[in-house]
Amino acid sequence: MIYLDNAATTKVFDEAVSAAAQMMTDNFYNPNATYTHGVAVKSFIESCRKEIAKYLGAEDKEIIFTSCATESNNWVFSQGRKRPSGNIVISAGEHSSVYEPAMRLKSRGTDVRIAKLDKSGRVDTDDLLRLVDDNTSLVSVIHVSNETGVINPIKDICSAVKRKSKNALFHSDGVQGALKSDSVDSLGVDYYSVSAHKMGAPKGIGLLYVNKKLNIAPMLVGGGQERGLRSGTQNTAYIAAFAAAVKQFIKTRDLERTHAIRNKLVELFTDSGAKIIGDRSNSGYILCVCLNGAKAEIVQNAACDRGVVIGKGAACSGSKRGNRVLSAMGLSDSEVERCIRISLCNDTSMGDAVTASEIILECAYKIRRGNV
Amino acid sequence: MIYLDNAATTKVFDEAVSAAAQMMTDNFYNPNATYTHGVAVKSFIESCRKEIAKYLGAEDKEIIFTSCATESNNWVFSQGRKRPSGNIVISAGEHSSVYEPAMRLKSRGTDVRIAKLDKSGRVDTDDLLRLVDDNTSLVSVIHVSNETGVINPIKDICSAVKRKSKNALFHSDGVQGALKSDSVDSLGVDYYSVSAHKMGAPKGIGLLYVNKKLNIAPMLVGGGQERGLRSGTQNTAYIAAFAAAVKQFIKTRDLERTHAIRNKLVELFTDSGAKIIGDRSNSGYILCVCLNGAKAEIVQNAACDRGVVIGKGAACSGSKRGNRVLSAMGLSDSEVERCIRISLCNDTSMGDAVTASEIILECAYKIRRGNV
Repeated sequence: MIYLDNAATTKVFDEAVSAAAQMMTDNFYNPNATYTHGVAVKSFIESCRKEIAKYLGAEDKEIIFTSCATESNNWVFSQGRKRPSGNIVISAGEHSSVYEPAMRLKSRGTDVRIAKLDKSGRVDTDDLLRLVDDNTSLVSVIHVSNETGVINPIKDICSAVKRKSKNALFHSDGVQGALKSDSVDSLGVDYYSVSAHKMGAPKGIGLLYVNKKLNIAPMLVGGGQERGLRSGTQNTAYIAAFAAAVKQFIKTRDLERTHAIRNKLVELFTDSGAKIIGDRSNSGYILCVCLNGAKAEIVQNAACDRGVVIGKGAACSGSKRGNRVLSAMGLSDSEVERCIRISLCNDTSMGDAVTASEIILECAYKIRRGNV
Repeated sequence: MIYLDNAATTKVFDEAVSAAAQMMTDNFYNPNATYTHGVAVKSFIESCRKEIAKYLGAEDKEIIFTSCATESNNWVFSQGRKRPSGNIVISAGEHSSVYEPAMRLKSRGTDVRIAKLDKSGRVDTDDLLRLVDDNTSLVSVIHVSNETGVINPIKDICSAVKRKSKNALFHSDGVQGALKSDSVDSLGVDYYSVSAHKMGAPKGIGLLYVNKKLNIAPMLVGGGQERGLRSGTQNTAYIAAFAAAVKQFIKTRDLERTHAIRNKLVELFTDSGAKIIGDRSNSGYILCVCLNGAKAEIVQNAACDRGVVIGKGAACSGSKRGNRVLSAMGLSDSEVERCIRISLCNDTSMGDAVTASEIILECAYKIRRGNV
């Protein structure tokens, strides 16, 4: 089995599984209990937070654990503005967990403005800045696109936004960017959402980076966990797994090698007449390919039967028709239907990636010829 | 080590650890992906939901997985009313994850009314009904108190509330009641919150029961998971662990035996001059004891040094001073300071419980005599 759907979920590192199992078995104590064992678990959580913060490029007090990046994104939109008024600007390339919270606010009367994408899938910075004004309270631009792997120049966009509007807070969905692109401290953002299952931890844990200069209202209230910002007994086993995964991810990360594999696949697909959505400056981890004359869904299933697992748009859009982000880049409906997503992980070998791509191309060829 | 803090966190069943580890290792696929492996994980989640629903006394479509009961409770208060107006009635015995969301609404202008407790810790139904009127949009009463183990007659309270106000929806925090007291379908409630780590699953998963007749607005929006009500990639490993834990909990449950152990401890503590907070009709799983002349915190630490882990108020109130619920029952500050909480699990043996109680009493005696 060659697994190339890491943009949706990465295989869980053995080290993360062990860390989680060890916590569940031996250190199941409530981290908020006041007896010795509870205090020890709490202190372990804090050491995990420190480690994760360090690798992301943040201070530990800037890291609030959540149950997933969708929660982090919802939190920013529901509680993250200095005052619950003013307009919001997002890019047309946002994941549904940013887009839908924005649409929810829009349906309740907020002025939500959507900045265009250029043909490469990057946000059109001129258009975005045109939409930002003194009444803008929040701007959200995805760091690395989950659909195409395109990298937005967050640092530049963020500082341009701040120059234009002194009230705007800046959020970036970092799910595909964290540990795979620029570190948080280099971006200058106010908020940054991270999902752990995109870096080898289990599904069900994420975090929100909140710049230390800011006060955000709590996501959940109750027992006052996470410095009062996110009540609810902490998921201690997954926090341990998250820290273990981050360490293992950093250990196995080789951005040049990943890029070289992606470039090889670009070559293979281009030679066969498929169209690459994006360019060489994209993230090495994600490759979006518009196949020639074969629907992505059929290719995906045929490839799966032959042991190759690939993606098709965001898993989070599941069975929804169409693709909001690819359409915003100017792709036709017919092109969108033919787009597959191949996403690499640190342990994807050149050999496996090439074999998988050949299988995908064979499947597409047979489908095009009607021989399936 | 004798662990008697199960009201805060139960030891994780081996079966639950294995189920979680197996999912992380072999079935890490995204349940929302459209290829075979994703579809298989999704179908497994649905079988877990079915199983959990069955044991709780609900239909599977009434079960929405969340990251914890705190999230479930926050959800009901933020989105669970038919219209976001009208007053809210809660009991004075609510857990902080119900009390704080209510207070948050109050600070934003909602009329929040708090019904008194009687001396046993039960909600004073007459007082509660006096507070309910035609403008009441939500009533929330805890099923089994996490502080004292007192069981509120939810079925009767709920039907009386419904008779008095046709607009009021009824929520019950079932964290200490689920599988340990009456089943959900017998209560007639609209919403019921459950935490999995109180029944032998890991911390970081819970659910909200939403009566099938109701439409609740989503807690999180985005990818549309959980029938659009709680977006975010599902925590597949913990859902598997949750189902495994529920099965194991039912298998090992013996309410009569647990009650017999609790009654034995009531006898032991009463004989030594300590005061039991509550009566024999309370849940067999929780025992609140007001010790004679020794502060709970010091006893808790001394007992821990001797291998006995007990609680002291809700772990979720952590280091906060005082105890809102015990004070509402009429206990003095000095009594509150001397209250410990002993909570049993299905596998707590009579021998361990008695040994632990003797150790606790010895610790309290030494502290009282100043010999610590």
